[in-house]
Amino acid sequence: MDFRYPTSVINAHFSLIKPFKPMNQEIFTINNLWVLVATILVFIMHLGFASLEAGLTRAKNTVNILFKNTIIPAIGLLTYAFIGFNLMYPGDAFIGGFFGLSGLGLSLPEGWDTPAYDEGFTFYTDFIFQAMFAATAATIVSGAVAERIKLGPFIFFSILYVGICYPIVGMWKWGGGFLDSLDTPFYDFAGSTIVHSVGGWGALVGAFLLGPRLGKYTEKGMKPIPGHSIPMATIGVFLLWFGWFGFNGGSVLSADPGDVSRVFVTTAIAGAAGAFGALFASYFKFKTYDITMVLNGILAGLVGITAGADLMGVGESAIIGFVGGIIVVFGVVLFDKIKIDDPVGAISVHLLGGIWGTLAVGLFGDLAGMSQVLSQLLGIAVVAAFCFATSWLIFFSLKRSIGIRVDEREELEGLDINEHSMQAYPDFASKD
Amino acid sequence: MDFRYPTSVINAHFSLIKPFKPMNQEIFTINNLWVLVATILVFIMHLGFASLEAGLTRAKNTVNILFKNTIIPAIGLLTYAFIGFNLMYPGDAFIGGFFGLSGLGLSLPEGWDTPAYDEGFTFYTDFIFQAMFAATAATIVSGAVAERIKLGPFIFFSILYVGICYPIVGMWKWGGGFLDSLDTPFYDFAGSTIVHSVGGWGALVGAFLLGPRLGKYTEKGMKPIPGHSIPMATIGVFLLWFGWFGFNGGSVLSADPGDVSRVFVTTAIAGAAGAFGALFASYFKFKTYDITMVLNGILAGLVGITAGADLMGVGESAIIGFVGGIIVVFGVVLFDKIKIDDPVGAISVHLLGGIWGTLAVGLFGDLAGMSQVLSQLLGIAVVAAFCFATSWLIFFSLKRSIGIRVDEREELEGLDINEHSMQAYPDFASKD
Amino acid sequence: MDFRYPTSVINAHFSLIKPFKPMNQEIFTINNLWVLVATILVFIMHLGFASLEAGLTRAKNTVNILFKNTIIPAIGLLTYAFIGFNLMYPGDAFIGGFFGLSGLGLSLPEGWDTPAYDEGFTFYTDFIFQAMFAATAATIVSGAVAERIKLGPFIFFSILYVGICYPIVGMWKWGGGFLDSLDTPFYDFAGSTIVHSVGGWGALVGAFLLGPRLGKYTEKGMKPIPGHSIPMATIGVFLLWFGWFGFNGGSVLSADPGDVSRVFVTTAIAGAAGAFGALFASYFKFKTYDITMVLNGILAGLVGITAGADLMGVGESAIIGFVGGIIVVFGVVLFDKIKIDDPVGAISVHLLGGIWGTLAVGLFGDLAGMSQVLSQLLGIAVVAAFCFATSWLIFFSLKRSIGIRVDEREELEGLDINEHSMQAYPDFASKD
Repeated sequence: MDFRYPTSVINAHFSLIKPFKPMNQEIFTINNLWVLVATILVFIMHLGFASLEAGLTRAKNTVNILFKNTIIPAIGLLTYAFIGFNLMYPGDAFIGGFFGLSGLGLSLPEGWDTPAYDEGFTFYTDFIFQAMFAATAATIVSGAVAERIKLGPFIFFSILYVGICYPIVGMWKWGGGFLDSLDTPFYDFAGSTIVHSVGGWGALVGAFLLGPRLGKYTEKGMKPIPGHSIPMATIGVFLLWFGWFGFNGGSVLSADPGDVSRVFVTTAIAGAAGAFGALFASYFKFKTYDITMVLNGILAGLVGITAGADLMGVGESAIIGFVGGIIVVFGVVLFDKIKIDDPVGAISVHLLGGIWGTLAVGLFGDLAGMSQVLSQLLGIAVVAAFCFATSWLIFFSLKRSIGIRVDEREELEGLDINEHSMQAYPDFASKD
Repeated sequence: MDFRYPTSVINAHFSLIKPFKPMNQEIFTINNLWVLVATILVFIMHLGFASLEAGLTRAKNTVNILFKNTIIPAIGLLTYAFIGFNLMYPGDAFIGGFFGLSGLGLSLPEGWDTPAYDEGFTFYTDFIFQAMFAATAATIVSGAVAERIKLGPFIFFSILYVGICYPIVGMWKWGGGFLDSLDTPFYDFAGSTIVHSVGGWGALVGAFLLGPRLGKYTEKGMKPIPGHSIPMATIGVFLLWFGWFGFNGGSVLSADPGDVSRVFVTTAIAGAAGAFGALFASYFKFKTYDITMVLNGILAGLVGITAGADLMGVGESAIIGFVGGIIVVFGVVLFDKIKIDDPVGAISVHLLGGIWGTLAVGLFGDLAGMSQVLSQLLGIAVVAAFCFATSWLIFFSLKRSIGIRVDEREELEGLDINEHSMQAYPDFASKD
Repeated sequence: MDFRYPTSVINAHFSLIKPFKPMNQEIFTINNLWVLVATILVFIMHLGFASLEAGLTRAKNTVNILFKNTIIPAIGLLTYAFIGFNLMYPGDAFIGGFFGLSGLGLSLPEGWDTPAYDEGFTFYTDFIFQAMFAATAATIVSGAVAERIKLGPFIFFSILYVGICYPIVGMWKWGGGFLDSLDTPFYDFAGSTIVHSVGGWGALVGAFLLGPRLGKYTEKGMKPIPGHSIPMATIGVFLLWFGWFGFNGGSVLSADPGDVSRVFVTTAIAGAAGAFGALFASYFKFKTYDITMVLNGILAGLVGITAGADLMGVGESAIIGFVGGIIVVFGVVLFDKIKIDDPVGAISVHLLGGIWGTLAVGLFGDLAGMSQVLSQLLGIAVVAAFCFATSWLIFFSLKRSIGIRVDEREELEGLDINEHSMQAYPDFASKD
């Protein structure tokens, strides 16, 4: 039996939308081409994350954040080739729907480049599309722990989190695991939970265990630490939105005209509505037009639509996005209140946005209903428990052994000089 | 009868090039995929505009210009879903070829995801491709009015201009309106007039009603106000050129190999020739190698080829682009002479370039001829009249009511601090 | 006989992989679409080069480097249309496999938009894809000669090198010339030698004839001159990697699912492994985490895989990329030792990486073997001889006539003020 795209999903998919046309080489070639194009759209999201996180942090830590965001996709690609893909799609090598491993490294199955492997793509396409996804989980973390984490421990965390934790969770749903075998299967089209919340939980644990940046929460209250380049943050969000058309659109796993175009529309509308949700909420809250909130609102709208991008209509997408944009503003305020310092708002965007989007599948669209709500809650809960536990385990072990936080002098001077012996902008005078 | 892509266009198209192959699911899927990919190429043009306009203005207004360019695509997507698409493609709901409205919001027609809807794309693809176009009109305006317009009124203008004015004009041609029903139909392949001049007229009216920036035109003559980041401007132009392959290439409305590849070549060559036109003209005029002129020359070349990208050969594209590049240099000089202050050169690029490109359809390529010239002039004139009048009406009403210009102190300090309570680059020391 | 894609290559290709399916309009349309998408991915690599080179040089020379990188693609497109394409694919107009010219300008052959022209693309697609490649050769040079070359002579060099030298070398292999007619044909899938080393030799000659930047090599040893914007350098490398999927993936010259997906995987893995190769080598050498080395390591991995991207497995790609990353670190050290000043590391990346990748075709993958090694060495050697000689001839003639280096004052003040009368960042205070 082929566990890779389990019957329940395919059936759900078929009954919701419409049967595929009988397969032929032409359609196979088109499908495969689209998934490959989607792959590089997801790839460029890593530049989006890099730009966004660099823009929203200080100039003295820019090399550090760019270094992490450059090395993470490399880690993701290599670990996914070595073990992640086999953990996520273990085929028959299953232990009770919770864990499976089908080997190490990639080996080309018979007929890997024909529809016999899959009607939507070749084996290599399958691997590379999923591999590009994998790295995003760690990238989400890097924003939340920015400006104070040691480089070595962060890379160590990333290798384990991307290489092992992410694919195990992914398997629970996309690899045919227990979340996919529920009577009402948990539904997560492109990863509001499976990708974004996985990253979000790691981000929450990391930010909590590190503690806030020096000077962020003083006796006189929270002191905003503005990011050093709004242009870079803006470039980042546009590139993420751009890439999201591949992230969601490619998750159709074919070039089916109706499905892909629907996903494009829901993705575009949710992002746009997220901008307005955050605009209104932040104007209401802060009485100013805060571009960083609008940018994060777009992302929250996108994270929100990700779980049900193939299930929603235009109005529903607008609602999901708009609420996502509101959530992110109050999330940022909330985390500051409880003194969890997240320099870029990653926890609000990816964790809260991911939870909201996952729940929204039960509230809106083609699958809405109470039993779906319960399955969504179950999925959210088990992923939370696993990711919280594993990232705590990794970060806490690192904290107790080699330490995870740079020392005070290093933090004040900046990580660039201390960890990388260089500056991001050596030709320009800084303000202080 | 299907007014959406009216018979006259299709016939013109067919007779010029060649008949479509008989439709089948494979070709439909390929066509749809290309239009979707083109959609996201047009999407990323919004980042291109954002970067270009931010780069060519001062650091103290950067958050403001980025804010506008971020919110405009969101406005475009939402208003186009609510009303624009129905205004632009009203089907039978016509009043004399000038105005039509087929409802509010989007409703999926029967067979929306099959070739019965259109041989080139599904309903959702049709919507989202056109929606991405819509927002560009307002983005063009934002550059010309930069560094002095109040945020609220600009957003109000954008909503009306993108949501209502743009689709009405678009309908005249692309929705089967009166410009498309002339004996010799007005021709505008991808929108030299329908998109770029529409934006350009709004830009001209806005810049005129606002007046120049403080200190721009003094008794001692014009004082150049250099943009704060040439790298951002360069990134912007490259992204615009990149996206233009989708803007023009997607306007083929299918993946027809001959048509799309021809459009790619004419688009590339016109941009390249525009660079040289502006290089020579600006060296002749200013005796220096002015990169901002070269960048705007590329854009003028691209705007110029847009009306006839499917009609020209390589040599004709080079001429159109080269002349476009020359026009932009003298346009910038001209507008400075009459004290219309356009910080980024948007009026020269999009309005003059758009007029030139529209005329060029009568002068070069497959449709060249006197009766085509007359139709092109008629189209240019009626679009001018309508856009000038409506943008004047909107901007002037706003000016007389809530005001459109920030006060002097705010302009001198910068819009970022005053409208957004933040700075684009808080870590860096400014030159003064 | 059709020399454009010579029998030997097609045969090698067929025997290695599998026969093409019988041609039809659907597959032709898909193939053509992919090559067009790949074309614009290669296009955006020019922004990648622009960003990378600007980021790794000083702020006072930024306008200059951006100017060059903007004008080069324009030069490439226009010269390739005028003469380059006819030099590279001369058809029957051959002189002994070394030189051929089939005319000037582009003329559409009969059946140019049907599979009769080529099963993978139309004539226009063929031209535009190759034209985008052409300009990269000169772009590589511009990095190595940055911060001290005069603008005029550099543009003159670029026109000759891109317009004439590059297509002649390209013909030797891709146009069916003598390197393709060896008993064991020289193999270079997407241009480790034909593109990257061609650029690399020009870069070496240019950097040598110019001499090092003032203050780079002092009596006290080499003084690092850090680039002014690590974010721009990072953006550049990500865009290059992004575009490389089109550079290598498009070189399949069809959308064949197996071939394109394989190339995507090898390209991604080699880039990732290159990051780690350079990370380890630079940590070993400098005891710090040097992001510029990691960025160049990615590029060296990508250059390395380019010659055999369709021949390698995952493990082989990882080795090739990893070694490429190591090479670049020691290359940079080496060129500094012999006082060849390459501000961005272009010679190490493109020349050394290109040689390594070309050799690797003989060492790993489907064609590995001693006779292949010899053919690869022969190809490397003749391209070296030709490019070294021609670029020496051009640069040396320029040096002896109008001069190629700006004067001392101009170099110290920066090229932006002196050649362009402007600054890249006029609003910001510099550090000195």
